[in-house]
Amino acid sequence: MTERGTKGKVFFRRLEELFRPRSVAVVGASDDFGKLGYHVMKSLLEGDFGGRVYPVNPRAREIWGLRAYPSVGELPEGVDLAVVAIPAPLVPEVIEACGRKGVKGVVLITAGFREVEDPRGEELHRKVSEIASRWALPIIGPNTFGFVNRTVGVNASFTPEFSLIRPGGIALVSQSGGFCHLSGFMAIEEGVGLSKLVGIGNRLNVDFPEMVRLLAQDPEARVIALYIEGMERPRELVEAAQELRGQKPILAYKAGRSEKGDSASRFHTGALAGDYRIWRGALRQAGILEVQSAEELLDAAKALEALPPLEGPRIAVLSSQAGPGLIAADKVEAEGLRLARFSASTQRRIDELLPPLAMRTNPVDMGPAWYNPRAILGILEAVLEDEATDGVLFLNMFASANLKLATEVRDYLKGRETLSKPVIGCFSAPLGLWEEVQEVDQRKGFVILPTPERAARAMGDLWCWHRVKRRWPKGG
Amino acid sequence: MTERGTKGKVFFRRLEELFRPRSVAVVGASDDFGKLGYHVMKSLLEGDFGGRVYPVNPRAREIWGLRAYPSVGELPEGVDLAVVAIPAPLVPEVIEACGRKGVKGVVLITAGFREVEDPRGEELHRKVSEIASRWALPIIGPNTFGFVNRTVGVNASFTPEFSLIRPGGIALVSQSGGFCHLSGFMAIEEGVGLSKLVGIGNRLNVDFPEMVRLLAQDPEARVIALYIEGMERPRELVEAAQELRGQKPILAYKAGRSEKGDSASRFHTGALAGDYRIWRGALRQAGILEVQSAEELLDAAKALEALPPLEGPRIAVLSSQAGPGLIAADKVEAEGLRLARFSASTQRRIDELLPPLAMRTNPVDMGPAWYNPRAILGILEAVLEDEATDGVLFLNMFASANLKLATEVRDYLKGRETLSKPVIGCFSAPLGLWEEVQEVDQRKGFVILPTPERAARAMGDLWCWHRVKRRWPKGG
Repeated sequence: MTERGTKGKVFFRRLEELFRPRSVAVVGASDDFGKLGYHVMKSLLEGDFGGRVYPVNPRAREIWGLRAYPSVGELPEGVDLAVVAIPAPLVPEVIEACGRKGVKGVVLITAGFREVEDPRGEELHRKVSEIASRWALPIIGPNTFGFVNRTVGVNASFTPEFSLIRPGGIALVSQSGGFCHLSGFMAIEEGVGLSKLVGIGNRLNVDFPEMVRLLAQDPEARVIALYIEGMERPRELVEAAQELRGQKPILAYKAGRSEKGDSASRFHTGALAGDYRIWRGALRQAGILEVQSAEELLDAAKALEALPPLEGPRIAVLSSQAGPGLIAADKVEAEGLRLARFSASTQRRIDELLPPLAMRTNPVDMGPAWYNPRAILGILEAVLEDEATDGVLFLNMFASANLKLATEVRDYLKGRETLSKPVIGCFSAPLGLWEEVQEVDQRKGFVILPTPERAARAMGDLWCWHRVKRRWPKGG
Repeated sequence: MTERGTKGKVFFRRLEELFRPRSVAVVGASDDFGKLGYHVMKSLLEGDFGGRVYPVNPRAREIWGLRAYPSVGELPEGVDLAVVAIPAPLVPEVIEACGRKGVKGVVLITAGFREVEDPRGEELHRKVSEIASRWALPIIGPNTFGFVNRTVGVNASFTPEFSLIRPGGIALVSQSGGFCHLSGFMAIEEGVGLSKLVGIGNRLNVDFPEMVRLLAQDPEARVIALYIEGMERPRELVEAAQELRGQKPILAYKAGRSEKGDSASRFHTGALAGDYRIWRGALRQAGILEVQSAEELLDAAKALEALPPLEGPRIAVLSSQAGPGLIAADKVEAEGLRLARFSASTQRRIDELLPPLAMRTNPVDMGPAWYNPRAILGILEAVLEDEATDGVLFLNMFASANLKLATEVRDYLKGRETLSKPVIGCFSAPLGLWEEVQEVDQRKGFVILPTPERAARAMGDLWCWHRVKRRWPKGG
């Protein structure tokens, strides 16, 4: 079974292929807006997917303008992926047909398996498991919204809007489809780039350990972000993560922390959440960084993906207005970082660029140079070159009176190949103005976050990652 | 002096009038985009201000198409407010002229007073103070961006975009103009309604105590939000706040917490930040709620303004997807709140509305009723009527497959006069879809926040406010 079972090589090769199919069958495809099969068709046809799409539905000859097939058995050969959105009792037969037809993987959107109280759910789950195992067929779900792979442009989900997510280097794997919808729309609004967004639902045979093993080998997944409620095999996740320890960042947001959460999790995806304290220790031991909110999960992933490493805790806070700089300085210390003490030569350069009208040591109030973008960028460069500084928080609140500062900072960033140290920027602005800066964002060692507090927290997460790398310099 | 001095009745009447002027002179008005006086003119002329605007500039006959006056002395009688944006050395003479002319108040944008190292700054400050005191002339600033009063539609600042802030019941007073730009643009993006946004800068004679005394009497300021760095007379703030204790919520975000922050604050606005632990105690004693971020300041203010009081700690978490519900449940407990235990009759109603496919006790996973908005709204109503529930977190992550849920929730909220208990909603959605819900937001005892974590935290702030009211039921 090691070659063909659900843990074998065939299984893993297929799992990898599942996420970049050249052809997709939609079982339960529909022209009716009220059916999930309608939205799956929409996601596939209106997104970037360039491959073939085969609707499967015995009650229609044509769906979304495409020839419909009455059953999986009648599909042409060589379909890579089947997305299944049909009533639960019909699922075992369809999975069996997929195996027989040589379909390489399944996204099982249908709910009503082990997560329900009804014992027939558990029985269905066992039945589908057994069939999948026999065919070495990886199944995402059941009870999932599906997945999006932005790297190759496949939206195999019931949410067409996820085709708007910017392609990037973060792979987000979640036990909850609701969490994917929270994070996916946040990513769209804030311009965060994802490679994959995957709802693993009730994890029939593709669970966190399998996803981490897969993503470990995936060069497009430069950062792995997990939303975990509970699972049956936490040890296997820890083992899979340990192999990657210090090599590729894994972030986790663990929900279901209380006793109530524990039973809620049991109901949701069929697994106990487990004792949170034990989870904390296990995550730490696995070199997984724990975060405390959906916001922080994306912020930290964005920073880890795009920025050069933070090699030390000494942070420069450069702010065009004193207030946001003070806020950032407070949070730098709260995050276990330190305010850098600039070298004498850096301080001299700053003193030359800034009139003695405000704080010129760290946190630097660049207010007196507000109308002098060259001075502000000169201070940024001085600090980037300072050996006593490891990272920079660069804060510029927009005011239309100083549009020039906004545009010159943007042009500077566009002109730089890369920045040598992590710089996290924070720019308030009327919607739209910073779009061009957002283009620069994530490409050149520079990311933007919406508030000084979030910028400082993401810097703290970079520092946590540095400590993981230092603790396990050779990985597992 | 009690009638006419800077603490007298005349002074306070003028301070009140300063924020709703019928006519404004702009000293330093300009047609040159590079001057602050250009942007102040733009703010006044392109916003909602219906009164007269008088440019003052000795070097022009016409500015922004209006007749320019060479000096304050030559202005017509009865100008209520002068916004001053001219070099610091010229300020004393202009303030003297304002007093002589009977101008009722001044916004002094000019910087370069006590906050600078140069002893001439301190001297100028003293000089202007003395003049202002002699004329009982309230001065906002110096070193401020100005203020916006959305209730009457005056934008007396150098940031014209602030006229886009939605009128509402939150008065935000900040020692930092940068913080106003951070919060002001956040408020615009998130649709938070403000009555006033005021940068008090270096607080020549209008400091936090004066603003709190003023806002205590202001029916448009239903919630007061403060951003504080440091001040000379913290005791007076505490005293002013105590008079209001338990009557009108005051929130404070205190920056400058570390030693570094202390000296940065000294440089910024001329006041030591002071020992943070002492501040914490003083704020608590004054009945002021402390928050920990710019985000929380607006979120909590929004919730306190719009929602009925949270009378107890028992929270119902209703979520259309289990994951966000689990997250909210975790945070409810972390905020010192409790998950409500529904009464037997409420539980029966929920059990009737929800098939037994998911968690039906609190946190309620409404997933199985995902396609049945009437059931979801029925559960909301059952919980609102339940005597064992004090507040509700109502979470619906959008998926286009279930547009119906989004629109029916919106229609339900539009049709309700008000909700009897605080409900904080969280809705992920592609930009634009929830615009109509945002209209409902804040009007009917219902507010929307972007994440389950922020929703739960704002509920925690409501609970803190309840405890302040309980501790000081009769105010000061």
